[in-house]
Amino acid sequence: MIETVPRQEIDIRTSRFQSRLEEMSLDGAFILQNVDLFYFTGTIQSSVLFIPHQGDPVLMVLKGFQRARQESSLKKVLSIERRDQVRNVLEDHGWIGPKKIGLEMDVLPANLYLWYQRTFPEFQWSNVSHHIQRVRMIKSPYEVNQIRSAARILHKGFLDIREIIREGMTELEIDGHLAMIARREGHMGILRMRGWNQEMTYAHVLSGESGATVTFLDSPHGGSGNTPAMAQGAGFRRIRRNEPIGIDYGVGVNGYLADQFRTFVVGTLERKLTEAHDCSARIQEIIEKEARPGVACSDLYRLALEVAERQGFGESFMGYGEGKARFVGHGLGLEIDEVPVLAPQFSQALMPGMVIAVEPKFVFPGQGVVGIEDDYVVTPTGVERLTLTEQVLMTLR
Amino acid sequence: MIETVPRQEIDIRTSRFQSRLEEMSLDGAFILQNVDLFYFTGTIQSSVLFIPHQGDPVLMVLKGFQRARQESSLKKVLSIERRDQVRNVLEDHGWIGPKKIGLEMDVLPANLYLWYQRTFPEFQWSNVSHHIQRVRMIKSPYEVNQIRSAARILHKGFLDIREIIREGMTELEIDGHLAMIARREGHMGILRMRGWNQEMTYAHVLSGESGATVTFLDSPHGGSGNTPAMAQGAGFRRIRRNEPIGIDYGVGVNGYLADQFRTFVVGTLERKLTEAHDCSARIQEIIEKEARPGVACSDLYRLALEVAERQGFGESFMGYGEGKARFVGHGLGLEIDEVPVLAPQFSQALMPGMVIAVEPKFVFPGQGVVGIEDDYVVTPTGVERLTLTEQVLMTLR
Repeated sequence: MIETVPRQEIDIRTSRFQSRLEEMSLDGAFILQNVDLFYFTGTIQSSVLFIPHQGDPVLMVLKGFQRARQESSLKKVLSIERRDQVRNVLEDHGWIGPKKIGLEMDVLPANLYLWYQRTFPEFQWSNVSHHIQRVRMIKSPYEVNQIRSAARILHKGFLDIREIIREGMTELEIDGHLAMIARREGHMGILRMRGWNQEMTYAHVLSGESGATVTFLDSPHGGSGNTPAMAQGAGFRRIRRNEPIGIDYGVGVNGYLADQFRTFVVGTLERKLTEAHDCSARIQEIIEKEARPGVACSDLYRLALEVAERQGFGESFMGYGEGKARFVGHGLGLEIDEVPVLAPQFSQALMPGMVIAVEPKFVFPGQGVVGIEDDYVVTPTGVERLTLTEQVLMTLR
Repeated sequence: MIETVPRQEIDIRTSRFQSRLEEMSLDGAFILQNVDLFYFTGTIQSSVLFIPHQGDPVLMVLKGFQRARQESSLKKVLSIERRDQVRNVLEDHGWIGPKKIGLEMDVLPANLYLWYQRTFPEFQWSNVSHHIQRVRMIKSPYEVNQIRSAARILHKGFLDIREIIREGMTELEIDGHLAMIARREGHMGILRMRGWNQEMTYAHVLSGESGATVTFLDSPHGGSGNTPAMAQGAGFRRIRRNEPIGIDYGVGVNGYLADQFRTFVVGTLERKLTEAHDCSARIQEIIEKEARPGVACSDLYRLALEVAERQGFGESFMGYGEGKARFVGHGLGLEIDEVPVLAPQFSQALMPGMVIAVEPKFVFPGQGVVGIEDDYVVTPTGVERLTLTEQVLMTLR
């Protein structure tokens, strides 16, 4: 039941990245971060990957060699015992010389960066993270199907949790049930973020005013959490009647994430909150109608903001005060914080194969968060919804 | 119910670190990683912390200012809007000049490191990660109490899961229940590791031969997981009678982790596996007897290895073949992979206040993993067990 990444996927990814290396006049790149390693090899066993601007990449495995060979379809998978041997392998391939080489400088620790500088003094280094992210931005049908599988788990979770949420229950109990459903159904067990110091629990369960708590996260909501050491998500607060319970839920299947949000209420929401929630639904409709290849991400953000402002909810749109986030959606794939971003400064046009999570939300201090988040893939003519959950506002007995 | 870190804790940590800065003739250090930030400030809101070699540290908050002020007992907490302003703040304090300044170069991304180099061309940089880790190595009674709270959750989990494990159930179902119990009881929602590319799920549920699957993790076991994208922990494998089910379980309370392992079996284990498990218990006894301030970590490793070899289990000790890990225990605190390490090359002597997880385990290819992991704090005269679960081999109906 364990699925490995098809060889053709890896081949296409490699050749798309090699075209970019050629465009930038780079001779090759080291790929070192586990998520990028997985993308270009199909394995996260402890390794160093070198992708030359043309020809076959070489995967040098420090730990988990047999497993890496089974998991990866690359032709050249070698076992090394120490990192020093990376230089020998490159020498054997005739790749040493006054070359321009890429590194993932947004995530690579300074010490490792300096090690590569010392070990390869003849190389000139260049940051290729942006290029890796741009290659990863366009998903293949195989990748979109993985996200569909993750969306199936979220759908089951959103339906099942309706039967579990009760007045008086803590946010953490609800979170625990969501974690249990996710794992039982096959969630891989972690939600990965690329951003420095960013990390995330499986779910944010945010009831009443805790939905309006500001956090360090690059997100419109965060929650109190149950400790400043985590400072996000569910806490010990108990669910009350007639208040919004915002649930942001994420799971991963074979590395690929789905990330959705639904608003629950035991009883009924007051009028202002219901109207704000309707406004989220309205924004979602408009974006579904307007989003298609060629439309700029910044224009979709502006469209969403306009609807929010027109309905009088501009101040609460995507957070309040210090907590306001300046985007209405983001790319989704092996990491939650992928490109493109539906944000004012992101003029990038939509392209077929992009997968985006669109999340118009409204935050009211002292009252909480309401909204919707759905996942979409950009098709040649528009967008297709990957979210399976039809119901948006989940009203409980 | 949300607990903030007492002011006195922060003051002592700061002054211990400042003594180290003085010893190294450093003028100050930037603290940027969220875990180190939490340790020295009590908050992980998006911030830059500067600790001068003497005098008050300054916390410059980029996002979550109000929250950082509530959570941190530091006297100087400022709001900044852009990272560029860090230089202005240091200028205002008269801290700019030809100085020697520390950075966390084991975790700081290369891009950020280069930003600091460009922004402060007059500074000479030095890696202070090792010194931060040495300060964090000695826990205060407050910190040990947090680990005790985490151990209470693990105890509840190990007892409750006995009633849940059934033949035919998948590893992932058991993992899901452990996640639910952990969160409901107050687990903060993540297990942090410092090592590059290292990450961990709440639990490893490893039944039969999946306990012998090698992974990239710096651990004696890893498990198949349910995808190469995660390559660790529980998978879709179903529990069978008379096979070992190794459960490694970790939770965090107010940032502090407890990390323990118990072996379960539905039915009975074959003789060799029972003897190996007894050998783990024997090693635990000996280490409990011998561990005290002044004893070298490497000597404890050697002692454990000798017992394993004497009983004929040397080959399986701490993993098998390529999967063998060269340690029998590790420091524990805000991260799972702290110092000291009970390993051959780690001549560091035990000191009061160290917290260690001791995990003698045996891996048999095709059969699985058996063993025990318990947490201890080093006292002035020996070690005190923090694990509450008395039972080691958990036999189920």
